[in-house]
Amino acid sequence: MKLLRYGPRGQEKPGLLDAEGRIRDLSGVVADITPDQLWGEGLAALKAVDPAGLPVVEGQPRYGVPVNGVRKFIAIGLNFADHAEESNLPIPSEPVVFAKAVSCLQGPNDTVVIPRGSEKTDWEVELGIVVGKRASYVEQADALDHVAGYVLINDVSERAFQTERGGTWDKGKGCDTFGPVGPWIVTPDEVGDVQNLDMWLDLNGKRMQTGNTRTMIFGVAEIVSYVSQFMTLEPGDLITTGTPPGVGLGQKPEPFYLKAGDVMELGIDKLGSQRQAVVAWSRDLVA
Amino acid sequence: MKLLRYGPRGQEKPGLLDAEGRIRDLSGVVADITPDQLWGEGLAALKAVDPAGLPVVEGQPRYGVPVNGVRKFIAIGLNFADHAEESNLPIPSEPVVFAKAVSCLQGPNDTVVIPRGSEKTDWEVELGIVVGKRASYVEQADALDHVAGYVLINDVSERAFQTERGGTWDKGKGCDTFGPVGPWIVTPDEVGDVQNLDMWLDLNGKRMQTGNTRTMIFGVAEIVSYVSQFMTLEPGDLITTGTPPGVGLGQKPEPFYLKAGDVMELGIDKLGSQRQAVVAWSRDLVA
Repeated sequence: MKLLRYGPRGQEKPGLLDAEGRIRDLSGVVADITPDQLWGEGLAALKAVDPAGLPVVEGQPRYGVPVNGVRKFIAIGLNFADHAEESNLPIPSEPVVFAKAVSCLQGPNDTVVIPRGSEKTDWEVELGIVVGKRASYVEQADALDHVAGYVLINDVSERAFQTERGGTWDKGKGCDTFGPVGPWIVTPDEVGDVQNLDMWLDLNGKRMQTGNTRTMIFGVAEIVSYVSQFMTLEPGDLITTGTPPGVGLGQKPEPFYLKAGDVMELGIDKLGSQRQAVVAWSRDLVA
Repeated sequence: MKLLRYGPRGQEKPGLLDAEGRIRDLSGVVADITPDQLWGEGLAALKAVDPAGLPVVEGQPRYGVPVNGVRKFIAIGLNFADHAEESNLPIPSEPVVFAKAVSCLQGPNDTVVIPRGSEKTDWEVELGIVVGKRASYVEQADALDHVAGYVLINDVSERAFQTERGGTWDKGKGCDTFGPVGPWIVTPDEVGDVQNLDMWLDLNGKRMQTGNTRTMIFGVAEIVSYVSQFMTLEPGDLITTGTPPGVGLGQKPEPFYLKAGDVMELGIDKLGSQRQAVVAWSRDLVA
């Protein structure tokens, strides 16, 4: 099943993507896609619905963040050996964990804003894990039993804020618009082998990132188990799992970064694709 | 005004502390203390209530986190020059920002659990800022206009997870029970000069930390302004602002840390006090 939310920001309705790729309206079944719909009875109720009986949504509505009520947005850094190398950083001996502010979450095709004063805003196509069931000190063998599904994430990052401003990476990871998520949460039965998915990102039509989840240093089960040793994972929590090579920071002979007018397009096998226009910050973007 | 939530975990009711130090029940006025009650019309409605007309809550109920629906729990590190010194770290040239997982939030007197495998769980009395009004790129001169109030926080920290396990500090800051908050949110009019509040923490009855918010390197207005350059602050967001000297890590001749059976008591002028018993992790603590 592919669960989604569609419509204007703040007024999203619940939906699912049917086998023919059409959005079907779930608002007659549930009020919203929240963590409660990702597991147990809530999920069972959605699975019992025949998509053919749901209204088809016409046109091309905006996609929102596919689950409402995300409490934690956790991220794993340097999780592809070749990306660690392009960043001139050692391969980590255990997962690097940082946090993205939940206020950066947005729909998969919403505009990305270069923060005021930024010169190093960068792209990162990533596989996102959506937690379905509470996880505290779970073993690796049991970890996938806590996963509701997978989702495409662009872990947009400001490199100077991340590493040149003191303190932790969090300063450069949670700026507004730095968390495009979606278009859909895909349940594990439709994903199959999550450690064999192709990943790609194009900047202005040129392929920048090419990768596959099989080269992750720490796989999904290990990540869920690991993070659950440091905090309880709750339904709806997102974990973004690191990016393959080809980010702006790793470009040769010189790094280069996003500028106003750029367009990012990215995707992961079975998880759909995203497209973001890039704009400069201005005061009137602040609601 | 001193706003609070009281009652069993997950069933807290809204309340306020009256001038005589008694809890008055606000549940006839509002359903809960959420970010909406901290600003504008929501706050005005509470200020219009005569506490003398509210039911007195008898006995000594548990205090909960004084606002429900916190989305971000942001923290400033090394913000007292003498604490940076005891940590053998340089005085930061700009604020060190990290994140505490919102799943670590708990009431001010709830038990603190030493995580499994932890040998370096430590204490940190801190002044917490409660955001009342959305703040994005605010100037320092305007920053206090976005503050709903102040609250006492124990920024419980696991030093090995924080600094010896790779990556950012976040691993050692967001473990379950590491965020005791409360007992009350105190509105700025009752706090007066927030940069002149005494702070203290006792371990098993012995004074460990003594400080005053006047020795903060970056004050409240500067912190709010600074963080708002990196992410939009939203109503209900918490920022904990750093700790004075006297943590376990800074003890001479040898650091020492929390163990099961310990009791922490801490307080800040005008913001009340907390008391936490410390226990070892065990599987049956996981709900």
